[in-house]
Amino acid sequence: MPANDASDDFTVTPYAVEGEIDYRELLDRFGADELTDDQIARFPDPHPMVRRKVFYAGRDVDRFLTATEEGQTVSLVTGVGPSGPMHIGHAMHFYHAKHLQERTGAHVYVPMSDDEKHFTKDLSLAEISEYARENLRDLLAVGFDPERTRVVVDTADADVIYPVAVQFAKHVTQSTMEATYGRPDNVGMSFYPAVQIAHLLLPQLVHGRHASVVPIAVDQDPHVRLARDVAAKETFDVDKPGALLSKFLPTLDGPGKMSSSDEAPAIYLTDDRETVEEKVQTHAYSGGESSLDAHREHGGDPEVDVAYQLLAFFFEDDDAVLERLADEYRAGDLLSGELKAYAAEKIADFLDAHQERREAIDDLEAEFQRYRLTDDERERALPEGVGLFD
Amino acid sequence: MPANDASDDFTVTPYAVEGEIDYRELLDRFGADELTDDQIARFPDPHPMVRRKVFYAGRDVDRFLTATEEGQTVSLVTGVGPSGPMHIGHAMHFYHAKHLQERTGAHVYVPMSDDEKHFTKDLSLAEISEYARENLRDLLAVGFDPERTRVVVDTADADVIYPVAVQFAKHVTQSTMEATYGRPDNVGMSFYPAVQIAHLLLPQLVHGRHASVVPIAVDQDPHVRLARDVAAKETFDVDKPGALLSKFLPTLDGPGKMSSSDEAPAIYLTDDRETVEEKVQTHAYSGGESSLDAHREHGGDPEVDVAYQLLAFFFEDDDAVLERLADEYRAGDLLSGELKAYAAEKIADFLDAHQERREAIDDLEAEFQRYRLTDDERERALPEGVGLFD
Repeated sequence: MPANDASDDFTVTPYAVEGEIDYRELLDRFGADELTDDQIARFPDPHPMVRRKVFYAGRDVDRFLTATEEGQTVSLVTGVGPSGPMHIGHAMHFYHAKHLQERTGAHVYVPMSDDEKHFTKDLSLAEISEYARENLRDLLAVGFDPERTRVVVDTADADVIYPVAVQFAKHVTQSTMEATYGRPDNVGMSFYPAVQIAHLLLPQLVHGRHASVVPIAVDQDPHVRLARDVAAKETFDVDKPGALLSKFLPTLDGPGKMSSSDEAPAIYLTDDRETVEEKVQTHAYSGGESSLDAHREHGGDPEVDVAYQLLAFFFEDDDAVLERLADEYRAGDLLSGELKAYAAEKIADFLDAHQERREAIDDLEAEFQRYRLTDDERERALPEGVGLFD
Repeated sequence: MPANDASDDFTVTPYAVEGEIDYRELLDRFGADELTDDQIARFPDPHPMVRRKVFYAGRDVDRFLTATEEGQTVSLVTGVGPSGPMHIGHAMHFYHAKHLQERTGAHVYVPMSDDEKHFTKDLSLAEISEYARENLRDLLAVGFDPERTRVVVDTADADVIYPVAVQFAKHVTQSTMEATYGRPDNVGMSFYPAVQIAHLLLPQLVHGRHASVVPIAVDQDPHVRLARDVAAKETFDVDKPGALLSKFLPTLDGPGKMSSSDEAPAIYLTDDRETVEEKVQTHAYSGGESSLDAHREHGGDPEVDVAYQLLAFFFEDDDAVLERLADEYRAGDLLSGELKAYAAEKIADFLDAHQERREAIDDLEAEFQRYRLTDDERERALPEGVGLFD
């Protein structure tokens, strides 16, 4: 067995995140680049997640920014695996994408990987479809531009996704798959990386070669790297997709990856104000001292305080307010419960607005139609020869 | 290394056939049953390929025959991989299926595995689609009943095939895949067995649980076994598909597997009379003696004579004629060239009739439409939940 050296203290793959994460060390491992202040400044009206380096690294970000500045076609791909209700971690990514779409005119493609969830979870396709409909309602409530946004469901859009994935599957060896993801349990898991490549290259297949970027948690970077390797083959008329890599979004019980299966409850997009307050007050890991006196004397640590981190990652737009909160917290003037109450209120305000748009969707199926690939778009995405007579 | 014992002298997998084949030994290896004379007699108007034990074994053949006798729904699945022009080996299987369809009312499903050919051959999907169109023309020329026959092209019918395969892929472990087919080069080859299971179970998904049988060369039996294992899971409302296993059809250069890539030329369904005569006279392996005098004295061996075998496998309908030819050949009265001329004429007659029907197809695309899954059939085949709103 190899010695347990420092760089082995944490593990990050698309299926597991373990240990204390050194985000810079991760970039060295993955070979991605840290975002520079210059790059951040080039984002049009940078979103708090960019401004505050939640998105802290990337691949080919300059190319994306230049294309944006020159008014060229650009796109984002940001997906969801429908295996549970959406939580605020999903919302952060989708609202960030919407922000960027509004400022750049980017096409946004949202793949829903119901096939992968069937391969990897103990869920039937029928069960997954219930989550998918609920997730879809949240997605559409974000308010993406229906002209420039496409939601793709792997099984429901298999007429496009499968032939496109077939084309890419030929170029992904089983050994590469296993080196990236580990040994698959079933043959669906073996194939799924080809489907994911189809997701990441789909905007370019539909709209022609352009700068496409994948805003994604850093643990999902291997998907992007595989897609980049395949995109580089001369057979395919696409550019390598870029990446915008984020830190893991905070869960209530501390730094790490927010997931529906974590121990502390997630804050769901359907939670009401009282539930949000209760979850934050009861479960949010506090950076404050345990007694009131000690807190007044020593102050709290905003860097590890989940309520503060939620504000910093997404829910407090105003940099000045955020800085004042940190100062007061460190000084011991702002109590942990007060900070939590403030965070809970900001989150609940956000969810109120989201839920209002969510409820306003009367006919989900009809609304969904506006976000589906058109016949023409399907035709353009398909490899030559598929359909036999087209 | 293990000692080279007798049972290792030949190898049969879906991707390789090597050595001298002991067909009975193969059944022991695979666990299939030899067809009995009683079973053969139960086939309605048994086709020469059944009567003469070209189909020599099977799985659950009794169940199929009983369903047939009771007038229940039955089906056959017999596919083609479009990677070259069709030869008479393909025709034998398709015309046999048509014969059985006419006498039993069986649904016939013909999957065209363009995806597999892309995974396993150096062919683009565009190149494969050219073969697929040519193959389709031959298929439709066979004269299947369009009401009861469905041609399914994996990429063109991916809307059904992929979601159905996803459902089955969850139940095929990577280890089972590799134990059956060997280590796959790419992730498409890993997934393909799930697609093949979708092919074999599709008739039951569309028409409800019934006796379905796969007439197939014995080397393809592993596909059937995998499908049977998955069909047996209680999640799926299907019976295990049965099998009707054939010997390898003769190639011109001797017994074995006829394939477009063998050394002697194959006889293609588009060959004209002169070409057939030339190929048979020049290339057909002869069971006769090398000199005329020796042949007159010792006679020939019809068992290894390819011209004779082609007649016996398919092209001579009349058992009495076949027996007379064998007798005269063994006696040395019938010369090798004469036997070849007779076989070439029978094959050319068959091809003339086939080609006439082939040419009569004016609008291939329109004709193809009559053999495609209807919307209603697609709907019935899809797993519950696919489509989100159906």
